[in-house]
Amino acid sequence: MARSDRITIALDAMGGDHGVSVVVPAALDFLKNDADVDLILVGKEDQIRQHLNGYDSGRLSIQHASEEVGMDEPPSKALRNKKDSSMRVAINLVQEGMADACVSSGNTGALMATARFVLKMLPGIDRPAIISVLPSVEGRTWMMDLGANVDCTAEHLFQFAVMGSELVASVDGIANPRVGLLNIGQEDIKGNEQVKDAHELLANSSLNYVGYTEGDDIYTGGVDLIVCDGFVGNVSLKSSEGVAKLFRHYLSLSFKRNIFTKLAGLIAMPVLNHFRRSVDPRNYNGAGFLGLRGIVVKSHGGADIYAFENAIRMAKKEVMTNVPEHIAQGVEKHFADRGEA
Amino acid sequence: MARSDRITIALDAMGGDHGVSVVVPAALDFLKNDADVDLILVGKEDQIRQHLNGYDSGRLSIQHASEEVGMDEPPSKALRNKKDSSMRVAINLVQEGMADACVSSGNTGALMATARFVLKMLPGIDRPAIISVLPSVEGRTWMMDLGANVDCTAEHLFQFAVMGSELVASVDGIANPRVGLLNIGQEDIKGNEQVKDAHELLANSSLNYVGYTEGDDIYTGGVDLIVCDGFVGNVSLKSSEGVAKLFRHYLSLSFKRNIFTKLAGLIAMPVLNHFRRSVDPRNYNGAGFLGLRGIVVKSHGGADIYAFENAIRMAKKEVMTNVPEHIAQGVEKHFADRGEA
Repeated sequence: MARSDRITIALDAMGGDHGVSVVVPAALDFLKNDADVDLILVGKEDQIRQHLNGYDSGRLSIQHASEEVGMDEPPSKALRNKKDSSMRVAINLVQEGMADACVSSGNTGALMATARFVLKMLPGIDRPAIISVLPSVEGRTWMMDLGANVDCTAEHLFQFAVMGSELVASVDGIANPRVGLLNIGQEDIKGNEQVKDAHELLANSSLNYVGYTEGDDIYTGGVDLIVCDGFVGNVSLKSSEGVAKLFRHYLSLSFKRNIFTKLAGLIAMPVLNHFRRSVDPRNYNGAGFLGLRGIVVKSHGGADIYAFENAIRMAKKEVMTNVPEHIAQGVEKHFADRGEA
Repeated sequence: MARSDRITIALDAMGGDHGVSVVVPAALDFLKNDADVDLILVGKEDQIRQHLNGYDSGRLSIQHASEEVGMDEPPSKALRNKKDSSMRVAINLVQEGMADACVSSGNTGALMATARFVLKMLPGIDRPAIISVLPSVEGRTWMMDLGANVDCTAEHLFQFAVMGSELVASVDGIANPRVGLLNIGQEDIKGNEQVKDAHELLANSSLNYVGYTEGDDIYTGGVDLIVCDGFVGNVSLKSSEGVAKLFRHYLSLSFKRNIFTKLAGLIAMPVLNHFRRSVDPRNYNGAGFLGLRGIVVKSHGGADIYAFENAIRMAKKEVMTNVPEHIAQGVEKHFADRGEA
């Protein structure tokens, strides 16, 4: 941790679709509910102050940054031209030890490129990867990579498994997380070359590898961590979001058909609300960028106040359990165990 | 069509998790509801007769086949050793012109390999691919490939777009189906090489290509056909199935919490049943294998009677609209339009 026994988290106040209008109220709500963490709001000071409405606390500070990274701005351009962006300055604070972690709802590619450039990779890790947790019938399932790496070798998939295992062990307190490798079936013909090679690497490792898993296993349980390349992971995640929208749409339509169904809807309202809360994707907001020498959490671009608070909580958990150090140790251990270090 | 103006469809009676106990009753139900189609049940005659319960009609015949392909049997072994399997004989009937199409719930890999070996590919098409339709907020979206091809070049993705467009135009009567290419975002860094190259091929073609789509677009509409490689398509489909299961699980849990929620569930029952019917995956059972010189429809391995009937309907639609011929014409047209034929 950066200073004494308190945790400090830097928030990119300008990132995401809603910028300061979500990040500042989320910060205030978070401080109300949490006693251990101090926050730094990074961005245009005047805009931040406007949303603070005179709120003043030793636990909240402002770090001015004069620029913003656009949601569609090419990462290389953001990295080269926006040296005083809220995103860049928030990551700098982590690098300088002024913050223990940073959270941003900004442009994923730019956040990734900037974090990698400023913080650098941990030894033995080639690329950062994105991990997030998803609800399952049994509890929850972590999944990575969710979009940082579109072409992965077997070695990359192995590195994801090592990093993800360490994160799940730290954050969820599971001693030997069960790791599954995403594939499209048990048949011999199935699976591409990278996946088959990664299967061999994992089977011969000291990780708790349980074998191939399929897309539906994410939500039905049986493993703690599912490893896949970022293209596949991202499509899986977005497809899941689409189905969830479709279900909500049809459920709402079914209750809106006529006066009787509307009445039934009124009676069932508390139950339906309970259901909506249990599948609310905002509960799972906050994806970790793993493999860096520092903690960076990506919040969904469209996150609202409640969702953004959850991303801050994810960052806090990573800080409290010191995820990057565990990953560094995990790399040493698991690489040695397969006779490569 | 094989004989006169009637349609004949061969059913692999032994395939799938339930074999004859699903296929035979599904055939009988189908015949009751449909006047245009004759069926051939292919498999072990004694077992089929047992489930026919003495039913006799000129519209239903039995073709004995002494072997079965196991659900986990390697496709190459099935192809080499099971020359009298129900699956193989059903496909032979299509090749010999005795049936206009065949439907099987059997092992996907074996069905694909056998169909390709017996029926052969259409000119210009390298590999068969799997297409199916999924529900969307706007209506429905077709998607291919769903698992036949785990490593695809840009050229393969282009071929899928041509085949899929012809199928959607034929079966859904949409003149110029909107085609989207599955990717993980609009940002420059995103997308792998094959997808970027396929994007160029499609943008320069005479197809109604609308650009990149993301996983959630499958279920929220905007395109008629989404093209992707089979690994990604299969993971997307399975992930969607998983989320659907999770939603049903939580919805049921929410109504089971206490006596009040159970009462609300009773009152809302007709509405919930309406909802379940509208998202029932059995309505979408029946995936087409495209690119072959013949019509083969794959039913889900776990299909029940209702689901299997829908797969027979999909085969009937393909026969009525003569999908393979349209694909052959589509290949000529679209390949010529890009100056390659």
